[in-house]
Amino acid sequence: MTDPALSKTGTSDRSAVLATSGPVRVGLAGATGFAGQELVRLMARHPHAQIAAAMASSASSPTRKLPALDRIWDGTIVPFDLAALADASDVVFLSLPEDAAGEVAPALVDRGVRVIDLSGAFRLRDEAARLRWYPKTKPASVVPVYGLTERNREAIRDARFVTCPGCYPTAALLALTPLADAKLLVGEVVIDAKSGISGAGKTPSERTHFSECHGSVAAYGVLGHRHTPEIEQELDGRTVTFVPHLVPLDRGILETIYAKVPTGTKTRQLHDVMQAAWASAPFVRLRAETLPEIKHVAYSNFCDIGWRLDEPTGRLVMVSCLDNLVKGAAGQAVQNFNVMLGFDERAGLLA
Amino acid sequence: MTDPALSKTGTSDRSAVLATSGPVRVGLAGATGFAGQELVRLMARHPHAQIAAAMASSASSPTRKLPALDRIWDGTIVPFDLAALADASDVVFLSLPEDAAGEVAPALVDRGVRVIDLSGAFRLRDEAARLRWYPKTKPASVVPVYGLTERNREAIRDARFVTCPGCYPTAALLALTPLADAKLLVGEVVIDAKSGISGAGKTPSERTHFSECHGSVAAYGVLGHRHTPEIEQELDGRTVTFVPHLVPLDRGILETIYAKVPTGTKTRQLHDVMQAAWASAPFVRLRAETLPEIKHVAYSNFCDIGWRLDEPTGRLVMVSCLDNLVKGAAGQAVQNFNVMLGFDERAGLLA
Amino acid sequence: MTDPALSKTGTSDRSAVLATSGPVRVGLAGATGFAGQELVRLMARHPHAQIAAAMASSASSPTRKLPALDRIWDGTIVPFDLAALADASDVVFLSLPEDAAGEVAPALVDRGVRVIDLSGAFRLRDEAARLRWYPKTKPASVVPVYGLTERNREAIRDARFVTCPGCYPTAALLALTPLADAKLLVGEVVIDAKSGISGAGKTPSERTHFSECHGSVAAYGVLGHRHTPEIEQELDGRTVTFVPHLVPLDRGILETIYAKVPTGTKTRQLHDVMQAAWASAPFVRLRAETLPEIKHVAYSNFCDIGWRLDEPTGRLVMVSCLDNLVKGAAGQAVQNFNVMLGFDERAGLLA
Amino acid sequence: MTDPALSKTGTSDRSAVLATSGPVRVGLAGATGFAGQELVRLMARHPHAQIAAAMASSASSPTRKLPALDRIWDGTIVPFDLAALADASDVVFLSLPEDAAGEVAPALVDRGVRVIDLSGAFRLRDEAARLRWYPKTKPASVVPVYGLTERNREAIRDARFVTCPGCYPTAALLALTPLADAKLLVGEVVIDAKSGISGAGKTPSERTHFSECHGSVAAYGVLGHRHTPEIEQELDGRTVTFVPHLVPLDRGILETIYAKVPTGTKTRQLHDVMQAAWASAPFVRLRAETLPEIKHVAYSNFCDIGWRLDEPTGRLVMVSCLDNLVKGAAGQAVQNFNVMLGFDERAGLLA
Repeated sequence: MTDPALSKTGTSDRSAVLATSGPVRVGLAGATGFAGQELVRLMARHPHAQIAAAMASSASSPTRKLPALDRIWDGTIVPFDLAALADASDVVFLSLPEDAAGEVAPALVDRGVRVIDLSGAFRLRDEAARLRWYPKTKPASVVPVYGLTERNREAIRDARFVTCPGCYPTAALLALTPLADAKLLVGEVVIDAKSGISGAGKTPSERTHFSECHGSVAAYGVLGHRHTPEIEQELDGRTVTFVPHLVPLDRGILETIYAKVPTGTKTRQLHDVMQAAWASAPFVRLRAETLPEIKHVAYSNFCDIGWRLDEPTGRLVMVSCLDNLVKGAAGQAVQNFNVMLGFDERAGLLA
Repeated sequence: MTDPALSKTGTSDRSAVLATSGPVRVGLAGATGFAGQELVRLMARHPHAQIAAAMASSASSPTRKLPALDRIWDGTIVPFDLAALADASDVVFLSLPEDAAGEVAPALVDRGVRVIDLSGAFRLRDEAARLRWYPKTKPASVVPVYGLTERNREAIRDARFVTCPGCYPTAALLALTPLADAKLLVGEVVIDAKSGISGAGKTPSERTHFSECHGSVAAYGVLGHRHTPEIEQELDGRTVTFVPHLVPLDRGILETIYAKVPTGTKTRQLHDVMQAAWASAPFVRLRAETLPEIKHVAYSNFCDIGWRLDEPTGRLVMVSCLDNLVKGAAGQAVQNFNVMLGFDERAGLLA
Repeated sequence: MTDPALSKTGTSDRSAVLATSGPVRVGLAGATGFAGQELVRLMARHPHAQIAAAMASSASSPTRKLPALDRIWDGTIVPFDLAALADASDVVFLSLPEDAAGEVAPALVDRGVRVIDLSGAFRLRDEAARLRWYPKTKPASVVPVYGLTERNREAIRDARFVTCPGCYPTAALLALTPLADAKLLVGEVVIDAKSGISGAGKTPSERTHFSECHGSVAAYGVLGHRHTPEIEQELDGRTVTFVPHLVPLDRGILETIYAKVPTGTKTRQLHDVMQAAWASAPFVRLRAETLPEIKHVAYSNFCDIGWRLDEPTGRLVMVSCLDNLVKGAAGQAVQNFNVMLGFDERAGLLA
Repeated sequence: MTDPALSKTGTSDRSAVLATSGPVRVGLAGATGFAGQELVRLMARHPHAQIAAAMASSASSPTRKLPALDRIWDGTIVPFDLAALADASDVVFLSLPEDAAGEVAPALVDRGVRVIDLSGAFRLRDEAARLRWYPKTKPASVVPVYGLTERNREAIRDARFVTCPGCYPTAALLALTPLADAKLLVGEVVIDAKSGISGAGKTPSERTHFSECHGSVAAYGVLGHRHTPEIEQELDGRTVTFVPHLVPLDRGILETIYAKVPTGTKTRQLHDVMQAAWASAPFVRLRAETLPEIKHVAYSNFCDIGWRLDEPTGRLVMVSCLDNLVKGAAGQAVQNFNVMLGFDERAGLLA
């Protein structure tokens, strides 16, 4: 907590102004899904915010409470209502299916509400790519900022509309973008991802049945997962082979990344590049002696990154991991909220 | 395999006769559920049987294969068809929902087919109890034999219709009936059961979602589970408090049973009573030094039973465990099949 | 957070005085075990405390960091040193083996340090019982307060020495003591407990090997677990049959409690008694419609309690669950710390 | 079971001769480890073999039984004794640490006993490689046959000494060797392996503690695992980047293999090559529509292989999986035994 490198992320004048005007009124849409409930948990304890509205994904969803959060948040989740949401909120988090988000986000922005969208509806900037991978979505009237906090702090600070990265791209890009910037990546990249089952969402299916998952591992979306074009977009078009797997745990993603660096590159150089990129990032932890493991990041907003380089051949193996519901979803959204509002980037996220 | 106590269960003359007339033609209805697939697996390797028909639960189910059983059983599961099932089979195993079983079982018996029913439709002999706990069922025209193999071998041998016990009652009754017979049980009994998730069936639901079960334990059916009256029936009306729990594993049940024995009863007496009851039972293993654990019985037809007695007070704790899909369902059904047909009780069950 | 029932636990004058004099200096001994690390995590974020010393269990343990807690607590765990610990600390938490705690706790109290002990060394007040179950311990020169916070707030407030309850007794006693006080318990009680593997401690053994635990459930300590006399002591000598089990999850305990209430007792009465006892307890959540599950309390300081009564017979089944490392260990210790120091009982515990 | 492609593996004349001379006397050394116990289980039910000796890993190990195998195998495991082992056995399976195996295997071969070694002591043919990765081993006086059954049936048939492949190489080589033979592999290969914890062996350690593994995934041996040179050896020196991971399940390995095929290669060609290679292999199952999952191979001797090709770019993703204790260890050893002795390759392995 006393790392001097963190001073840049401290409380700004702007937040001081905001702080005097009372807590920020926050609206949540899609509050009953896994990421939505995590948002409720995080915002309920946020020092500068107040949950002004928590709504389900649709107007026909029943009113309900969240028993697991009793005493942490004792509010009620009500059916979705756009006008009421806009009226109640300074900032809205959307944790909706992408087609719903595609409708709701621009409507809120038009009404002057700041929007942080967790869906995939607005992540792909290329029109053709978006239509291929998210066919039910429409172009946004307002262009959103891509909310990989550590890369886009300045733009997020002034944004009215942020689209949060996917869980897999977050882990991949925090590992790879510093190397790409430093021209240390050669050729294609392979990303082998292992994800807990909460990543498959809350809807019961054969895929998420306990007896299907327990004692098993399965690849899915091989050569056809829509996080692939998102990672490629943020790596300026580099070819990525991405294969996600479901592993029998609840929360967390570990990605093993296979890449090549120029012959002659030293481990020390990699270390310096990564260190320079993330020394002041409060939620990226670089691991040297031991490689990251999911258990060290579960229930936190950290992304842990480690690597091993075979210097003679330039073969590089990186390991990047995070909690898919926190840093891969709700936590990163709150981090963006903090940056947007001028709060300490860590507010509400280090407990 | 050379335990002399097992000799009573050996091949009889009758089986010799049957064996010369070729494999028994077996029909399976409800072959895609968890217990149904286990039946396919067991019967595919049975030395004296042949799967003559494998059908889904209903006439509208699609035709399908079972990929996990490729090379073990390469047959096809076809839609349910009563007439075809009866024609193809000498013996039929029913692994159907109880209302379907309630219709199909008597119809098959009427056509001269021997039936082994795994559902609950016919387990409760008392009309009022049956209607309360299985309201969609009707009285059976032919009274079935209660297929707790170890208790009813003689009756099963001559039966045309066997109703297999529930998974929980099987574990409970193998532990308690010898003591009840020996007048060593005093008063009420508490049974606390822990079951793997496969016990909740194959249909996806919030209850069986991996993220609900992983890292959790939950009681269900407290004071209202329909295996309670079944256990009480087989204990001649003794009051049983039975609470099942779901624990985060796939296959297996462990029951901890709290009972009282008459003051002055010695551990040695209990041992003798249990030993006398089950010495010749090939699938009941009595544990003395270590208590049973699920991992020792998973994927087997064994029921392991152990106990600890507080001699000064007569408080008795028994632990009984089995694989709910094998000894608690498909395996016990095959064991009954073996007894019915005069085969070695262990045929196809000891691999 | 706005539950009026909680107002009694609010910030007192005393805490206001303390708060002005800077954070309380806290010492931790045994900071590398499971409960010890949880204490570090909780105290690192405590609003009114500062970790002044974090020590291992023995003087020969190596100096080390806790990588999982990077950025949350960046301190160093040093070898145990009694004098240094006493000098640095206003209050010390002991998370040591009971024989070590038995030595260290009185020595610290003698030096004027307030002590919160998580071990079993001082839980049993009866000399003979203590010697039987904790043979390596000695009588305490200062009699400690039994730190079941919800029962003993007044005594804890003035205590110099608190002995925290065991994890199993905490769950059992929060469920049973209100009924015992109201004379609603008849006869003996059976407690069937299911615990995650972290309850078995950090030392690797065959018992804690993943392959032993995965897919299995096992009873242990049957009729011989030392938490039994502790529960019986706090229930004024009532006979308790207690059987703990290991279930394949990491954190959490669920206890199913079988008891009898006087015939004629109504569910409504039970509800009123429980409500009256715990309405103002911030960490006890009474469940009516749904029974408690471990997943709702994991990683929290809550103890969730629910029940079902068979009114005609007076048979009562209660379900009580908590996180063994939080409410069952470190969290309850911090709760006692808060009460001792006059802080809001929830300080640092509701994140 | 009636797949005509399997006819080539049927009972030969030689086995007929052997069969008439009574069961083969089998010795097992290292029978208490995970693979050793699996060998006991498999050989206890083998139709043409008899366990003549089952020994622990060392002369100082205590005599013991295997409670989980009661009624399946009721023999006793005795301390290791080379002379007694040689005298009792026609064929010996060694499931020993590699340095012990390095001593024992040649000694047994010299005494005329046929040896099937499961350790790594003799897998690497290159002297320098062997000394680097298995420094405690010595050159073998008799050169063993590499026991990847599907590749080396003819040599195994006549072998006196077989060294079984590692679990990871088995899955990798069954996927890759047909493509390498058909000149369909271009450049380097990446193998990302996910293994259950039983792969880490039976000795308790922090690494195998349940609380370390549950809810986590961790890479290990990155760029330094000794199965890498074994895979490279069998791929004629092709460069392989191999990273194994521990995932929270007990039994099974899933490998995701990233390779390149020549531009213009069609999915159909791959299918034909794989089909031609393995159509008559009873334990390799090629998956087309769905990719392999661990749950379909656990507790079996199958290796399931599937793949997806991006035809425009030649990027190939293969998925290969098996049970590390069966096809990756004990099962493959028994398969080699069957080939050596002229039995049906499937004997004892299809239950």
